[in-house]
Amino acid sequence: MTKIGIVGASGYSGSELLRFLANHPGELQVALCTSETYAGQRVDSVLPHLRGFLSLDFEALDINSLKAKVDVVVLAVPHKVAMEFVPPLLAQGLRVVDFSADYRLRDVDTYEAWYHVLHTSPALISQAVYGLPERYREDIRTARLVANPGCYPTSAILAAMPLLDSCAVARDSIIVDSKSGISGAGPKPRDNTHYPNRESNVVAYNIGVHRHTPEIEQELSAVAAEPVCVTFTPHLVPMTRGILSTVYLRLKQEMSTEAVLERYAAFYANEPFVRVLPAGEYPQTKAVLGSNYCDIGLEMDARTNRVVVMAAIDNLGKGAAGAVVQNLNLMFGLPETEGLQVPGLMP
Amino acid sequence: MTKIGIVGASGYSGSELLRFLANHPGELQVALCTSETYAGQRVDSVLPHLRGFLSLDFEALDINSLKAKVDVVVLAVPHKVAMEFVPPLLAQGLRVVDFSADYRLRDVDTYEAWYHVLHTSPALISQAVYGLPERYREDIRTARLVANPGCYPTSAILAAMPLLDSCAVARDSIIVDSKSGISGAGPKPRDNTHYPNRESNVVAYNIGVHRHTPEIEQELSAVAAEPVCVTFTPHLVPMTRGILSTVYLRLKQEMSTEAVLERYAAFYANEPFVRVLPAGEYPQTKAVLGSNYCDIGLEMDARTNRVVVMAAIDNLGKGAAGAVVQNLNLMFGLPETEGLQVPGLMP
Amino acid sequence: MTKIGIVGASGYSGSELLRFLANHPGELQVALCTSETYAGQRVDSVLPHLRGFLSLDFEALDINSLKAKVDVVVLAVPHKVAMEFVPPLLAQGLRVVDFSADYRLRDVDTYEAWYHVLHTSPALISQAVYGLPERYREDIRTARLVANPGCYPTSAILAAMPLLDSCAVARDSIIVDSKSGISGAGPKPRDNTHYPNRESNVVAYNIGVHRHTPEIEQELSAVAAEPVCVTFTPHLVPMTRGILSTVYLRLKQEMSTEAVLERYAAFYANEPFVRVLPAGEYPQTKAVLGSNYCDIGLEMDARTNRVVVMAAIDNLGKGAAGAVVQNLNLMFGLPETEGLQVPGLMP
Amino acid sequence: MTKIGIVGASGYSGSELLRFLANHPGELQVALCTSETYAGQRVDSVLPHLRGFLSLDFEALDINSLKAKVDVVVLAVPHKVAMEFVPPLLAQGLRVVDFSADYRLRDVDTYEAWYHVLHTSPALISQAVYGLPERYREDIRTARLVANPGCYPTSAILAAMPLLDSCAVARDSIIVDSKSGISGAGPKPRDNTHYPNRESNVVAYNIGVHRHTPEIEQELSAVAAEPVCVTFTPHLVPMTRGILSTVYLRLKQEMSTEAVLERYAAFYANEPFVRVLPAGEYPQTKAVLGSNYCDIGLEMDARTNRVVVMAAIDNLGKGAAGAVVQNLNLMFGLPETEGLQVPGLMP
Repeated sequence: MTKIGIVGASGYSGSELLRFLANHPGELQVALCTSETYAGQRVDSVLPHLRGFLSLDFEALDINSLKAKVDVVVLAVPHKVAMEFVPPLLAQGLRVVDFSADYRLRDVDTYEAWYHVLHTSPALISQAVYGLPERYREDIRTARLVANPGCYPTSAILAAMPLLDSCAVARDSIIVDSKSGISGAGPKPRDNTHYPNRESNVVAYNIGVHRHTPEIEQELSAVAAEPVCVTFTPHLVPMTRGILSTVYLRLKQEMSTEAVLERYAAFYANEPFVRVLPAGEYPQTKAVLGSNYCDIGLEMDARTNRVVVMAAIDNLGKGAAGAVVQNLNLMFGLPETEGLQVPGLMP
Repeated sequence: MTKIGIVGASGYSGSELLRFLANHPGELQVALCTSETYAGQRVDSVLPHLRGFLSLDFEALDINSLKAKVDVVVLAVPHKVAMEFVPPLLAQGLRVVDFSADYRLRDVDTYEAWYHVLHTSPALISQAVYGLPERYREDIRTARLVANPGCYPTSAILAAMPLLDSCAVARDSIIVDSKSGISGAGPKPRDNTHYPNRESNVVAYNIGVHRHTPEIEQELSAVAAEPVCVTFTPHLVPMTRGILSTVYLRLKQEMSTEAVLERYAAFYANEPFVRVLPAGEYPQTKAVLGSNYCDIGLEMDARTNRVVVMAAIDNLGKGAAGAVVQNLNLMFGLPETEGLQVPGLMP
Repeated sequence: MTKIGIVGASGYSGSELLRFLANHPGELQVALCTSETYAGQRVDSVLPHLRGFLSLDFEALDINSLKAKVDVVVLAVPHKVAMEFVPPLLAQGLRVVDFSADYRLRDVDTYEAWYHVLHTSPALISQAVYGLPERYREDIRTARLVANPGCYPTSAILAAMPLLDSCAVARDSIIVDSKSGISGAGPKPRDNTHYPNRESNVVAYNIGVHRHTPEIEQELSAVAAEPVCVTFTPHLVPMTRGILSTVYLRLKQEMSTEAVLERYAAFYANEPFVRVLPAGEYPQTKAVLGSNYCDIGLEMDARTNRVVVMAAIDNLGKGAAGAVVQNLNLMFGLPETEGLQVPGLMP
Repeated sequence: MTKIGIVGASGYSGSELLRFLANHPGELQVALCTSETYAGQRVDSVLPHLRGFLSLDFEALDINSLKAKVDVVVLAVPHKVAMEFVPPLLAQGLRVVDFSADYRLRDVDTYEAWYHVLHTSPALISQAVYGLPERYREDIRTARLVANPGCYPTSAILAAMPLLDSCAVARDSIIVDSKSGISGAGPKPRDNTHYPNRESNVVAYNIGVHRHTPEIEQELSAVAAEPVCVTFTPHLVPMTRGILSTVYLRLKQEMSTEAVLERYAAFYANEPFVRVLPAGEYPQTKAVLGSNYCDIGLEMDARTNRVVVMAAIDNLGKGAAGAVVQNLNLMFGLPETEGLQVPGLMP
C-alpha cells in the first residue's frame, strides 16, 4: 500500500484528487492532507461531497516530517511555493508529484521570463519528468519528481501531437483557441470567479501572455523536433469544469478528414484515456465531466486546407487530478487505469 | 454473476443506470439494452460519455425472449407502458425493477385518479415492494417486483420520516416545496426543457396535481399510522440534476434544532446513503451530484414552531438509478453499497 | 430637471439605477456618483455595459457638499452606513431615497434585535416612508426620506397583500419560500458568490434569522390590522437575477382559484407594475428580467385548502433600482411609469 | 408614423423585435404580427415578458393583403420561406426587411451551393442591400429590400473590417472562432437546444460548412477588394444570448496593439453602436446583453505577428432585431439611434 500526502489539499486540484482516490481500490491511500486555512478541521466538513469518505483532519504542513508518514507527496500549491517544498522533499527520499508549473519547463530562462520569478532550484528541473503518460510513460514509472501538466497544455498537446510528428503541418500556422470553465482559477473568490461576472458571459483573457503557452510550445517542439510557436487564446465560458481546445493547423498538402482521423486513431490506439471520435462527431466537454478522458475529434476545412482539431477534457480531471492518479499508478507499479475507469457525468 | 436487461436504456434513468453499473465491480452485468429509437446503434455512440465502457448495441424489445438472456429486468419506460411489460416478465419468472409509477401506489383508485389511466394489472400491485431501502430493506431482498420510488418522493419522505413516526408533527401542516433540475423531464426536447426557457429562470408547475403527491402521502401516512395530506409544489430551477426539497412541519410542542437533529441522526444512524448534517449546515445539491447520497439538514424556526427540513439528492442518482443499484444489490445478495460509494462531483 | 446623486454607485443597486436612468427621458439626471473604491475612474470603464452613457467619474463622498450639486440623494450603501449619512443629508434639506434597511422598520427594537446594531437616529424613523408605491403612493410623493423596500419583502408583500386585508387567511399559516439569484449579495466576491459554488447548486440560507423577515411581517401585519408572523426561507438558485417567492396561505373557508384571482386582479387593477396572470399561468423570473414588473400567479390546493401564490421580480429591478425610479418619479411629480415601461429580457 | 408588419413574429428574432419596438418612441408602430402556430392568440399571452405592451393578436398570414395595413414588412421566417414572400411584397410596393439569408449573398451560385436550394427570385438579389449600416448606411436609407445580416457575420465583419481595407493582413490567414449562446437556434425544441445538452457543455458544430461562411467572405472580400477565404468555427457555449467572435489575422508587418487600436478607433469613430475598447480591455458578451452594441477589443501577439480581435454582440440584438430597428430608422428617416440607446443588462 502506498501512502500519499497531499499538500494544499483543500484547493480544487487537491480536493479533486481526494475525490478520485475515493474511487481507487485501495493500493493508494491518503495518509495526510495539509491546509493552512483549514488546519484542525475535518476534511469532510470543509468538502461536503466527501462526507463519510475520509476520517482525516486537515493538518498544518511540517515539510520535514513527511517522510515518516507518507511514501509520496502530491503538491497542490501554487507555482513558486512548490519549488520551496520540492528540494526538502526529494532530500528526504520522497517521491513528488507537483501540480504546479515549477518543473514543467525544461529551460529555466523560459520559466523565469514567463513566470516573472527566479527559479530557486534549477538543478532539479532536469530530474523532473513531464507527467503526460501519452508521451513520457516509461520515464514516469521511475521518476522521483513528476511535473503534472497544465490543463490547457494537456488538451492542446494531445490535440496536436499526432500531426506534428511529421512535416505535414506548417510550423507557423498553429493557433489554440481554448474555452474553459472557471474552476481552474481555484476556490478563492475573485472578481473573475464572481457568479454574476461569469454567468451568461464569455470573455478572453491573457492573450499572448498566458503562461501555458511555453509549455504547449515546449512539448509540440519536442514532437516536431524543431521549434514551434503557437498563438494561444484562453476564454472563460459559463461553466465550472471543462476545457474545449480548438486547434487550427494548416496542412502542407491535402488530406481528407478520414485520413487524418486514421492517423489519430493509430497514434492513440493503445492509450486508455484518449478517445478519438469517428468522423462527424465532435467532442463535448460534458462527455468527460469528472473523468480522466480526453475526447478528440477533427474536421478538415478543405477550402483553406486547415484541419480543425478539438480536444475536450475536464480541467480538474485529465487536466489535473486524474492525470496525477494516472501518474501515481505508473510510479507505483499499479495498473495504469486503476480507479480511473469512470465515465463522464452526462447529462 | 447477475445479468441485467434494461428496457428503455437510452433515456436518462436508463443511461444513468449504465453509468452507475460501469462503476460496479462486476457481479451485476448489463447483458441487454433495449431502445426503440436507437435499435441497431452502438450504446456508446448514442451516449458519448460511455464510449469504451460497453460493447453492446441497443436492441428492439422482444418482451418474451428476455428470460433466456437476463436474470432481472429494469424497466426504464414511462408509466402505463411499464404495466404492459410487468405481467409477461413476472410470468417468465424474471424479477423486475420498475422505474415508473405503475406499482408504487398501493391503492389502485388513487393511482387511477392521479394518473388518469386504468390500471391493467391491479392484482400485481400487492406483490410490489416500494423500493426505498430506508424503509423496506428486508422486503426488497426477496421482492420479485420492486417499484422504484419517484425522485421528489425520495427526497420528501426521507426528509419527513423521522418526525412523523411520533405525534410530534401537526398532521395538516406539511408543505413540500421542491426545487429541481430539468433532467427529470427526460431526454426528449420539449418547450419546458428548451435551454432558453430554463436558463436564468425559475417557475413552479403542476401545483396541486403533481402525481408524486399521493406517493409522498402514502409513505408518510404509513409512517405516521394515520392519513397525512401534503401540499406539494415542484419548481424548475436552472440546473440539469439535483433536487432540494424544503419541507415545513409544524411541531405540536417545542423542540430545539439540536434535539430534532439528534432524532434524525439516530433514525439514520445505520443508513449508508443518508447523511444528516450537523447543526448550522444545510444540504446543497452539488454535494450529491452524480451520487446515491441524500443529504439532510434542518433548522427550527422557534418563532413559528416550524421545523424546516431540507433534503438534497441527485434526481437521477438516489432519486432514480442509484436507488435501482441499491435495490439490485439487496435483491441479489450483494453488499448494499457495492458500486455506490462514489462522492458527489463538486465543485 | 432633477439632479440625482448616487452614493455607492458602483455596487449592483447603484449601477442598476444608472442603467434604468439611462432609459429615462431626462427629467431625472445623474449629477454625481460616489464610490470609495473607484474614485477618480470613469464610471463607464468600471461598468462596461454603460460605456458611452455617462461622462462622469466616480468621486469620493463629501457628505456635506452634496446640497450644492444635487436635489436628491440615493444611498446605495449597506445598512448601518446609511444611517450615518441620512441625518446630515436631511439636515441640508436634501431628499433621500435609501436602498438600505435602516429606516424600513418602524419599531426600533425590532430593528436592533434583527440587525444587531444600535440605531443612531431613531427619531428619523417616523419620518421615513416605506417605498412601496402599491401601498404608500401618496405618502411617497411628499416624503423627505424614502426607505426603499428589500427585494424579498417586495415579492412576498405583493404576493400576500390582497388576501390579508380580510379575515380569509389563517394568521399563523403563512410561509414564504423564496428562490433567488445571487446578485442580491452584491459585487464583492465571497465564498457564496463564487461561480463553482453556485452553478448547478441549490441551497437554503439564514433560515429563521433572515433580516427581511420582520419587514415582511411589519407590512403584512399592517395590511391585516393584526400581528402576522411568517416562516421565511430564502434559497440561492443558479442565476444572477430574479426572485420567485412561493407563498403558502391557508384559507379559513373554501375559495376557487378563479375567485382568488379575481380578488387579486381587482386589488391590482390600477397598478402599472403588478401583472396578475390568468388562471393556469405561473410567473417566471425571466419574464421580468431587467424590468420593474412583478408578475403574480396563484393556484388553490383544494385538498389542503391552501392557496399557493407566486410572485416573480428582478431583485435588482422591482426589488431595488426599478422601485427607486418609481419612487423618484412620484417624489418629483413625474409620471410614475416614466423610464420604466421596459419589458423583461426574454428569452 | 410608420406601420410595421412582422411575419413570423413569435420566433426569437420577431419577438426580440417586438421587445425593441416597445422601447421605441412611437414613430414605428407594430400594426400586425403573424404566426401560423399562434394565430388567434394574444401576443402577450404567448410572450409573457410583453404582457401589457401590445393589445394585438397573432394573425395568420395573408400575404396579399398586407399593403392595406402596413408600410413595411419584416420577414422573420426561415430562408427559402422568405424568398416566397419577398416578390409579392415588393410587387405591392411594400418595403421589406428580411431576417433570413435569402438575399444576403450577391452571387446566386454561392447561395445555392451553401444553402442547397434553388433561388426562385435571383433577379431581386441585385436590388437587396446588405443591412449593415456600418458599411451600407446610405444604400439602406433608400432600399426597398434590406437583407439583414447574420449574427456571426455581423460580429466577424465588424471585427475584421478595419484591418482588411489595406494590405496589412495576409489574405489567407483569417480564422474566425465564434462562441455563441443557443438562442440563434430559435424557439423550437431540438436535441441541441435541450437544456441538459447545453448546460455545462461546449461543443463546435458545422465546421467548414456553416452557411454564414460565404457571407463573411463576401463582405470581407468587398472590403479587401480581393477574394478572402476564412476558416470559420462556430461553438455553442452554455448561455442563451451572446456571441463572442475571436478573429485571428496575421499581419504582413509589425504593428503594436496601440497602433491597431488607433486604426479601429478611427474607423468606428462615428459609429453609434460599435464601441472600441481601450488597450487591455476585452469585450464580454454580458456588457451588450439585450442591446444593439458591438464591443470590440484586440491584442497583438507579437511573437507570432497575429492580431487577435474580439467582437461581442447579442445575437438577437445587434445580430438580429437591433440591427433591424437600426435599419428601419434609416429607411424611414428617423434618427438612427432611436429606441436603441439602451445599455446591456449587466450583471
